Parts: sequence; structure tokens; C-alpha cells
Amino acid sequence: MTSSLDALLHPRSVAVIGASDTPGRIGGRPISNMLTTGYAGRIFPINPKYQTVQGLPGYATLAEVPDPVDCAIIAVPAVDAVQAMRGCADAGVKAVVAFTSGFAEHGEAGARAQRELSAIAREAGIRLVGPNCLGVFSVRENWFGTFASVPSMGPLKAGPVGMISQSGAYGSHMFMVAQARGVGVDHWVTTGNEADVDVAEVIAHYVAEPAVKVIVAYAEGVQDMGRMIAALDAARAAQKPVIFMKVGRSGVGAAAAASHTASLAGSDALYDALFQQHGVYRADTTEELVDIAYACQFGIFPRGRRVSLQTISGGVGVQMADAADAKGLDVAPLPEATQAKLKALIPFAGVRNPVDFTGKALAEPDLMTQNISLTIDEADYHSHVIYVASVPAAPFTREVCQRIFAELRDKYPHEVMVMSLIAPPEVRQFYEELNIPCFEDPSLAVRALAALTRFGEVFAAARRGVPPAPPPGAMAVPGSPVNEYEAKRILASWGLPVTEDVLAASSDQAVDAWRTIQGPVVMKIASPDILHKTEIGGVLLGAETAEAVRRDFAALMERAHSQCPDARIEGVIVAPLIRGGVETVLGVVRDPLFGPAVMFGLGGVFVETLGDVAFRLAPFDEQEARCMIDSIRGRAILDGARGAPPADVDALAGALAALSVFAAENADALETIDVNPFVVLPEGAVALDALIVPSQVRDESV
Amino acid sequence: MTSSLDALLHPRSVAVIGASDTPGRIGGRPISNMLTTGYAGRIFPINPKYQTVQGLPGYATLAEVPDPVDCAIIAVPAVDAVQAMRGCADAGVKAVVAFTSGFAEHGEAGARAQRELSAIAREAGIRLVGPNCLGVFSVRENWFGTFASVPSMGPLKAGPVGMISQSGAYGSHMFMVAQARGVGVDHWVTTGNEADVDVAEVIAHYVAEPAVKVIVAYAEGVQDMGRMIAALDAARAAQKPVIFMKVGRSGVGAAAAASHTASLAGSDALYDALFQQHGVYRADTTEELVDIAYACQFGIFPRGRRVSLQTISGGVGVQMADAADAKGLDVAPLPEATQAKLKALIPFAGVRNPVDFTGKALAEPDLMTQNISLTIDEADYHSHVIYVASVPAAPFTREVCQRIFAELRDKYPHEVMVMSLIAPPEVRQFYEELNIPCFEDPSLAVRALAALTRFGEVFAAARRGVPPAPPPGAMAVPGSPVNEYEAKRILASWGLPVTEDVLAASSDQAVDAWRTIQGPVVMKIASPDILHKTEIGGVLLGAETAEAVRRDFAALMERAHSQCPDARIEGVIVAPLIRGGVETVLGVVRDPLFGPAVMFGLGGVFVETLGDVAFRLAPFDEQEARCMIDSIRGRAILDGARGAPPADVDALAGALAALSVFAAENADALETIDVNPFVVLPEGAVALDALIVPSQVRDESV
Repeated sequence: MTSSLDALLHPRSVAVIGASDTPGRIGGRPISNMLTTGYAGRIFPINPKYQTVQGLPGYATLAEVPDPVDCAIIAVPAVDAVQAMRGCADAGVKAVVAFTSGFAEHGEAGARAQRELSAIAREAGIRLVGPNCLGVFSVRENWFGTFASVPSMGPLKAGPVGMISQSGAYGSHMFMVAQARGVGVDHWVTTGNEADVDVAEVIAHYVAEPAVKVIVAYAEGVQDMGRMIAALDAARAAQKPVIFMKVGRSGVGAAAAASHTASLAGSDALYDALFQQHGVYRADTTEELVDIAYACQFGIFPRGRRVSLQTISGGVGVQMADAADAKGLDVAPLPEATQAKLKALIPFAGVRNPVDFTGKALAEPDLMTQNISLTIDEADYHSHVIYVASVPAAPFTREVCQRIFAELRDKYPHEVMVMSLIAPPEVRQFYEELNIPCFEDPSLAVRALAALTRFGEVFAAARRGVPPAPPPGAMAVPGSPVNEYEAKRILASWGLPVTEDVLAASSDQAVDAWRTIQGPVVMKIASPDILHKTEIGGVLLGAETAEAVRRDFAALMERAHSQCPDARIEGVIVAPLIRGGVETVLGVVRDPLFGPAVMFGLGGVFVETLGDVAFRLAPFDEQEARCMIDSIRGRAILDGARGAPPADVDALAGALAALSVFAAENADALETIDVNPFVVLPEGAVALDALIVPSQVRDESV
Repeated sequence: MTSSLDALLHPRSVAVIGASDTPGRIGGRPISNMLTTGYAGRIFPINPKYQTVQGLPGYATLAEVPDPVDCAIIAVPAVDAVQAMRGCADAGVKAVVAFTSGFAEHGEAGARAQRELSAIAREAGIRLVGPNCLGVFSVRENWFGTFASVPSMGPLKAGPVGMISQSGAYGSHMFMVAQARGVGVDHWVTTGNEADVDVAEVIAHYVAEPAVKVIVAYAEGVQDMGRMIAALDAARAAQKPVIFMKVGRSGVGAAAAASHTASLAGSDALYDALFQQHGVYRADTTEELVDIAYACQFGIFPRGRRVSLQTISGGVGVQMADAADAKGLDVAPLPEATQAKLKALIPFAGVRNPVDFTGKALAEPDLMTQNISLTIDEADYHSHVIYVASVPAAPFTREVCQRIFAELRDKYPHEVMVMSLIAPPEVRQFYEELNIPCFEDPSLAVRALAALTRFGEVFAAARRGVPPAPPPGAMAVPGSPVNEYEAKRILASWGLPVTEDVLAASSDQAVDAWRTIQGPVVMKIASPDILHKTEIGGVLLGAETAEAVRRDFAALMERAHSQCPDARIEGVIVAPLIRGGVETVLGVVRDPLFGPAVMFGLGGVFVETLGDVAFRLAPFDEQEARCMIDSIRGRAILDGARGAPPADVDALAGALAALSVFAAENADALETIDVNPFVVLPEGAVALDALIVPSQVRDESV
């Protein structure tokens, strides 16, 4: 199944099985769409009922078509679809778009029929889109393998955006909203039941497609996470921004998704992790999805976060500054000297940043040139948002405004400028052609600029960081439960700092251990069968004398034997008592879709009450670990809250990356890991306790 | 200054001082706007240079005008404005709109001139809008006291929305965006420097204006909080929704606001409190401001949160369910029996809620009728969001769709329905006339419905709850610092539960107190001069014997005398040791603009690291206190996190309301109050410590 999607996306000849002479019917729409717009390839209508279809010669069966067919559209009812697919296989068709519904979405019988469909396709080397999909189209090539009535909207705007939607209805919705927003589209694919081609593969294909510069995707679930990750990595490496809407954030939404498709809806927090790690912009609304795609199509990605805000209204300046702050942009002040020069131009207005050229600009439009030029010449901003209300559209200022911005663009060909204005499309177009994206809402102009800036950062890093290599001597996860002592030894072998514990089988050995440690100790029951030691009083803190060590040893053995008579007791762990530091929790969960994911949070109420945790898919590097650490709400605790010294965040990041490598390398053998507490000290860090739960169902061949 | 704004908003005659014969000039635009649109009153252009102005007879001075003038527009430069205002006073003008800039926004000389302007107005009983404003207009009455070029946009849409903006540029921006969104406007006022009329007074006037049903406001700061609160309360009582944009959320934004206007920009958290308490919708972007105003103009406010989601696309159903969940709406499932009936209609689609009538509805549009009717007939939803993509606009389904929704509206005249669709304005209009608000973006349709639902709740409560009356015997705040013992006695007199403390002047008295308490005690230094007792070791916990009480008494006195030799030591407070419960923090701050505000948060990291606190302006009732408690992120702690029993939230709410009444009644005497910790027990609650800081500058007449 490695053949490309070229026959699907750029077919030179198309057969429509179930073709209709009526342009409005499902089997008639693709033909009428292509005839109206002037598709350059050949169209073969297939229907035994007609001699001609919409003026084209018709064929009773695919076998009668005299020439090779790149792509066939199946537009017949479900009962005839499998037979149609066989015909495609016999005729050597390279790709099929199956509109037909009544497959996996219709219960078990439909699922069987769908498996038959995809088996035929696989054997014949046919790439299959659908079934139960709205098809495929290319605005540039006038190829309309869809029964969506998009060309009836009027002339379509071609451009650099490649669209993919699992849902046909939504795909058509987002296309229409995008066109109305001035987003130019290259290809559009809906994947429906994804019997073969899925969203990830279309993304990968768009990465390879030179005409596509921006990728917009909508999915309710992801079939194959490995393929999705590879596609997103390829997009990042090719510097093609991906804007993704993945529904099912809430419990109630996810329940609806499950009843709608056969998709595996993974945990939403892991989708967030996926998108975060791979530099994808996750949109929550169609308006946002389309607005960010609009901005991306200009291909300008600032190389840093410093933004200047230029405004004709002080109040809008404040509004933009609020938005910039909320989105993590840096509204850095202008140099004092520049502020003084601006003050001479606009004595009673803001000059610090935002720069408020005020209503004076209506009477003296060249104030805009002066303000903006001074800002660009004398400061070091990565981008500029310019709010000009309806000045570019008003009769008295329209032409002078065009002259001003044309001159600015001439003088500063590479400066990133974004404009907020109220003007009809024909006015906006002038500025868009100067490579200045235009937004009506000033706050949303800032939102879009923040998205472009984030893509700039992602692209500057070129590709994801390389996770550390497994250290020599790293131990595998055994097939059966391990006690805390062994769990820590395994984690230590992968580079996680752990307490230097001694497993004491006797009271004498415990005293020896205490002597070696040279300080107060913690003593804990060691048993692979007792996972929650504190619940049976299996942890005793602070023994400082040989006598106390002997007393605690005896007490622990007694408790273990009396309360867990069937547990295997392997002795007592003697560990140094660690004081101070910040308690954190590191964990690993294995998700059936995402594989192993690492969790990080602060101890206590942060995890338990606030759910203030971050996830990343394993493996990842220390840089990603730092982003993860920075993303939690309680982050300030690590800087030394309440008078405490700052914690060693480098050590924490190193441990998270090491844990992620361990989790990835032992994915099949692991169920969960809890490192709780993991104490981050002013220098270094250390796991005080660890629990490794091996996977219940082991792959015996490993 | 109690005269109404009628002469300003409904003038029967208008003079334009500084009138211009050129329609494009500032002094020409009001006249040209009114002549173009057909203003019914009389217009008197004032300018010694012209005999006629735009075809109207001109007057050299206002004194020459033979008839009474309701409203005069001052459109002359700043140097002539004061003289023009004197002319208005002499001529008995009732209201003035001053366009002229160069006043308070231009430094101290300008501020002086502005004071002169407003003094003249005040003495003559003239209501003054501006200076430095873009003026006033009424779409319905074609009164254009503005130099905004709005009528050049083409025909304006009149309707029930009253707009107020402090900023002229932004006011004009929001008006244009609103008109494009189909928002009908009655009046529009910009207040500029607010030398007299401010945003609050215009809101109050709109409340009294029958044609205004929805109020949209923009401000950078509020001049008089009492006036604003009264206006917002009046709006709520009149069931007129207020949608407000207040910029300056971030530190950087607030800095820009201060440089832009002379407004007092109060703390943003207190603005949030204000809007929350008074049922105001706070918008963050213009898009949001206008979209919510659009929804409100239909005058439908659901009486509860249960919403049904009807969709032609399963994926959009999920998206809407996510949005509803995030906005606090209840996507309650349909009754099982109804689900079974729907299943018969749409066997392979979601029937639980969302209800997915699927693409089948394209072929059988009456499916929509059946699904929606069954949902309305058999379940008890307060509202319905219906996503129909472009079905109402597509040629084959356009008419049947109109028939279906007309019939549904006939059958269910009062059912709240909101539609998401993609269609041109003329198609949307049909549904809007059925009182169905239309949105392109399904998530934003849900956002708007959530706003309508919130207004429904606010209006159902009719008016703000009544704060409790001060209890008999409630003590006043003394003019000098008080110790903890006295602070608690004062708080207790206002109804806050406090520990039953004894102030012991001697060791013997301390032992007596311990005997009375019958349990371990806490002992603390009592001094009005030592605010932070723990820092000098001034708190000792847990004395359980007479001997321990004597020892602790001596230790505390020694520490106080040695470490704070100048402090007045009034003895030792002996208090029962309270165990268990949830530690919270109650506080009062006095803001120069907002007056006293009450703060609530949980102890420890919640307040200190996460800043997880809520504010409300004092006074308020227990119901508002409960909203306040529910709004913090760590709320679950009070339900009994980590195995603890649930805390007595009623007692907490009672204490917050009581504290708010105390703060309001002693507003001038108070600087701050800290009740920290305030422990909420499984039954009851108790303040363990309290600090009252009296205001430094007392009003001696109180």
C-alpha cells in the first residue's frame, strides 16, 4: 500500500460508475461540476441505462472503456458497490472514490462489506477513498470527484491550502467558510470511513505536493498514530503549517463522536500533547481554523515574539496589547530615544508601544509612514500589527493610504506586517497583494500573528529534538511485578536519579545499611505484592539509631506478615531520609492509540484536586520536557515559592526525558509507571518511591 | 445635573457651531448626514463666513438663531470652544456635543480649559457630551450629531441596540462591524473625555428608552462606580442585557490605557467582579461583542441550561457538544423512549443528544421536522441548536427547508431555536423573521446561546439579592490599630464565626482560660503593634497542661518584649486549638474606584502560587457568595478532597456575605481586612486569626 495518491489527486482520466444524466443527482454532480469548470482530463460515464450522459458518450460497464482509467468514482447503492469495486480491479483502475454509504457506519453487516471492499482494493493495488465520503476535488485542476455542490457557489479561489476532513458535511462547511474568508484552496479530500486512505496519509501527501503550502485538517479520531506522527513531523520539516480541528474535547462530545463514527477517540489530553509536540495549531472553532489558515497562506512566519502595535485608536491599542499579552507575544517598549522622536510627532498620544498615531492621521496620513518607519528603523521588532479602522476604505483617505503602504512595503520588503481594518474585499486585496494579511477584528489579528509566530519558532527548530539514547546497561522490564527496590534499580539504569537504597533481608543488614547512609533513614516493606505500602503502615520514617532501626525492622515485618499473609516479603528497604525540595509526580500511561505517554505534575492538590498535569508522547528530549514543565499552572512553585530556594529544573527535565525513553523502549512490556514523589532539590532530584506495573498481556516473542 | 438626556438623543432642533459648506469637513458632515437621510427637526448652521451652508440659511452667531435650540454641536478649534460654550449657555441650549479635541487629553492646560467648559455647562444646566468625542446619532430619527462618516456606508439598519463607546474610533469600528453582522442600532453615543455625560449615564438613559432593548458598551475606564452600578442594576431590573467590552486586562494593556485617557483604570479583577455580580456579559473581542448583541436583539432568553443539539453532521454535533460543555450548558440525553423512536427514523446515527439526522435529510428533509418535533414534544429542553450546513441555501432544498421551519415555528411559537447554517443574508433573513438567530459557526452559535441562557438566569432573579442587614450591636471600626482579640470581637459582632478567645493579662488568667476551654490551646501575643506574630515566634500551639500554659505565657511575653521593645503588649490570647477543616482566606481590600471588595481563596498554594481567588464588590448576599465560592479552580477541596469530609459551604457563604456587609458599612474606616486562616469545618466555620487595618485618613465627621 505504498503507491502514492497521485492517481487520486491528479487523475488524467475519470470514470463515474453510476453516472446520471441529471446534473443534480449524486451520480450526475461530479460530471456536471467538471464539465462546467473545464476539467482537462477524460470523463467516462458508466451506466447501462444511458447512451450519452450530460452530452458525453456513456458506457454500460467499466470493461467497455477503451482507455486506461486513473480514478473511478463509485456512486451506486451499497448492494452494488462491491461488484463495482471488482470491476475497477479488473479494469486496472489506480484509485477509487467511493461515495456509497451503508458500510461500517451501518453496523456489523456493513462493516463486513467494507472489509470486502478494502480487500479487493488492496489486492489490486487500488487506493480507496471512502466509502461513505463526499469525495475529492482540486480547484486548480478542475477535478471534481465529489457530489458536494461547491462549484455552484460561483468561481472558486485557488491557492496554497490543502484541506482534509474525515466528515463530508463538515468538510464542505469549512471549505465554504474558508472561501468566504479569502482562503485559496488547492486540494480538498474527505476520507469518510477510511477503509484505506486516512487523514494522516493525505497530510503526508500534501507535504510532498509542491502547490500545497498550508494544511488544514479535521478529524473525529485518528486510525494509526504512528502514521499521523510521521505525517506531522514531515510537515514540520517541510515548514508547512498544520492547523487541526479535532473534536471530542469534552466527555459529552466524545460520547457523541463514538456514536458517529467507528473512530478510536483517544484521550483529549493526549491529542493536546500530540499537537503541542508536533507544532500543530489546534483550532476550537471553524472561524479560528479558517482565520489561521488565511494568515498562514501568506507564508510569513516571524522569527521572534517582539511585536509593535500601531494604532489610530488608543483604546484599540489597549485591546491589542491585552490580546498580545494573553497570547504570549512581547509588547516590548520602544527605545527611549525613539519614543522622544515619536513624541514630537504625536505629543499627546502613546509612544511607548502601542504607538497611537491618533485621529491626527486622518488629516495627516503621512504620520503613519513616519511612525511605522521610525519603529522599524530604530527598534528590533519581529512583527507589526497596524490598526487603521476604516481609513483605507474611506473616500478621502483611500488613495493616500494605498500609497503609504505601497511605499512602506517597497522600503521594507521583508518586514512582517499585519493589518486590522474595516473595508470591503476589493480594498483588502490591495494590502493582501503587498503581503499584508488583513483582519477586521484587532484582537483576532493579534491571535493570528501569535499563531504565525509559534509556527516560526517551530520551523526554526527545523525538526523535533532527538530524545537521548538509552544508556548502556539499561535494564528491561521484567514480565512479572517488581518491588520498589527493583523498580528504582531499573529506573536508575535508564538515567533517573533515585535514592541509594539497600534491600535488607535481616535486622543486621538494616543496621549495616543505616551505618553506610550516615543519617536518619526511611524504612519500607519490600514486596512485589504490596503496591500501596503506606496503607498497611509499611513505611517508617526517621530512625536515627541502631536500636530504632532494629525496632522498625521488626515492626515492619510483623505488619507485613499479619496484614498481607500471602504476600512475598523480600525484606525491608533502607533509604536515606530526604528533606526539602519540591515534590513532583512523574508517570507513564500506555494508551491503546497513542502508545506510552509521560505525565508530569506537582505533588498534593496540584495533581489530585486541580488536575494540573501535562502529558507528552514518549519519547522526547529535554527541550520538550522543559516546555512540558513550563505548561503547568503551578510552575512558579519550582522557582521557589514561599521562600524556598529554586528547584533544579534541569535535573527534572533530564529525568522526564529519560523516563520517556524508558517508556518508549519498553512500550509493550509496560502498563503504568508512577514515580511519586519525585523530589526536585535545589541541586539534583531524586525518586523517593517508584512503582512499575508490567503489561498484563506480554508479547511472548519479545 | 439631573436633567435627562432627551435633548441630546432626540433633539427637535440642532445648531452646528463651526458649520462648513463642504460636506466632507468635520463641521460639514453632521449637516450633510442629516440632509441625506432626512432628519425631521430643524438645522441651524452657525458660521460668520457663510450666508448659506449646504443650501440651508447660515447664521453668524448662535444668538441670531430665532428659534430655541435643543442641541448644539461644537465643531470649532479648541481656542474658540469655550467661547462657543458660553454662547450656548446664553442661548438656552439644552445639550451640547463637543467634537473639539485639545482638552484633558492634551496635558494640564487642556484640562483647565475642560474644567471651564464643564463649569459653564453645569451652571447653565446644559448636558455636555465630550469634548474630544465623535458625537451621537440615532438611526431611527436620522439625527447625526457626529462627524463619523457612517451614513456613507449605505442604508443603515435600525433596531433595538443602544451603543455607547468612550472611544470614537472604536465606537465607529464596532458600529460598522455590528451593521455587517445584522445588528440593528437605535442610538449611538461616544463620550470622549466625559467632562459631563459618561458611559454609565448613557446606559441608565438607554434603560429608560423604550426603543432600546439591548445595550452594548465600550470603556477604557469608569469615572464613577456608584453611577455605573446603579445603571447596571437598572438594566437588569428592566431585563435589558448589557454586553460590555472593558479593555486593559493585562498589565501592558492597562499601561497603554493610562497613556491614552485620563480614566482611572481600576484593577481588572474588580471589573470582572462588577460584571459578574451585575449579570453583564464581558466580551473580549469585537467579534464577540457584536455576535452576542446580534443574538440578544431577538429578545429570547432561555429559562434553563438544558439544550438539545440537532445536526446534519455527526462531527459538528460533537463540536457543538464540546462547546456546550465548555460553556456550562447541559447536553442532557433524550428519554430512552424518544431515543428508540428516533432510532427508527435514523437507524445508524446518534439519537441520544446530539441528534444526528445525517445526510439522509438531504433526500428526506421532513426527517428534520420529525426529529425536532419528537425532541420538543417528548423532552424538556430549554433551547435547541440546529446545524443544517448549507441545506437552507442549496437550490434543491431551499424551499422545503423554509416550509419546514415555518411549520415548526407555527407549531412551537415560543420554543427557543438557534440555527447554524451557511447562507447569504437574504436566506438567513427568512429564519431571523421566524425569530431564529442565525450563526455561521456552530460553536459560536452555542456560545451565543450560552450567553442568552445566562441572561435568562440573571433576569429570572429579577434583581440582585439583598445583602443581610447589619446585626444589632454590630461594632464600628475604631480609628486606631486593634489587636487580634479585638479584631475578632468586631468581626463576631457582624456575624462572622470566630474562635472563643480569652485575652489573658497574666499567667493565672491564661490558666483559667485553658480550664474553661477544656482542651489543648493556642497561645498568641496580643498587640496592636505586632501584625505578623509568627515572624517573632509569637504563636505557640498545643499547650495541654497548666504547667505548659504558664511556660508558654512566659515565653511569649519574653519574645514580645525582647523583639518588639516598643510594642504595646496587651497580654496573650488563649484560644482553643482547632483541628481539621479546610483552610481558606477571606479578605477585604478598599479600591479608590470600586470601594470595598471582598476576596475569597483557599489557603496555601491556591492563593500564594496560583492566585486562585475570587472578588466581589461589597455588599452582597449569600447567593452571590456561593457563586463566588464556586468560581475558584480549587473548589473541589471544599467537597472533601483526599478523603476529608465535605466542608460546610453554607457557613462559608454566610461568613462572606457578613464580611461584605461589614466592609460596606465601614467603607471609609477600613483599609484592609485579612481573615487568615478561616477554617471551614464539616459543620460550621471559624476564623482562627484576623487582622483589621483601619484607614489611615479617617473622615472625622463619621
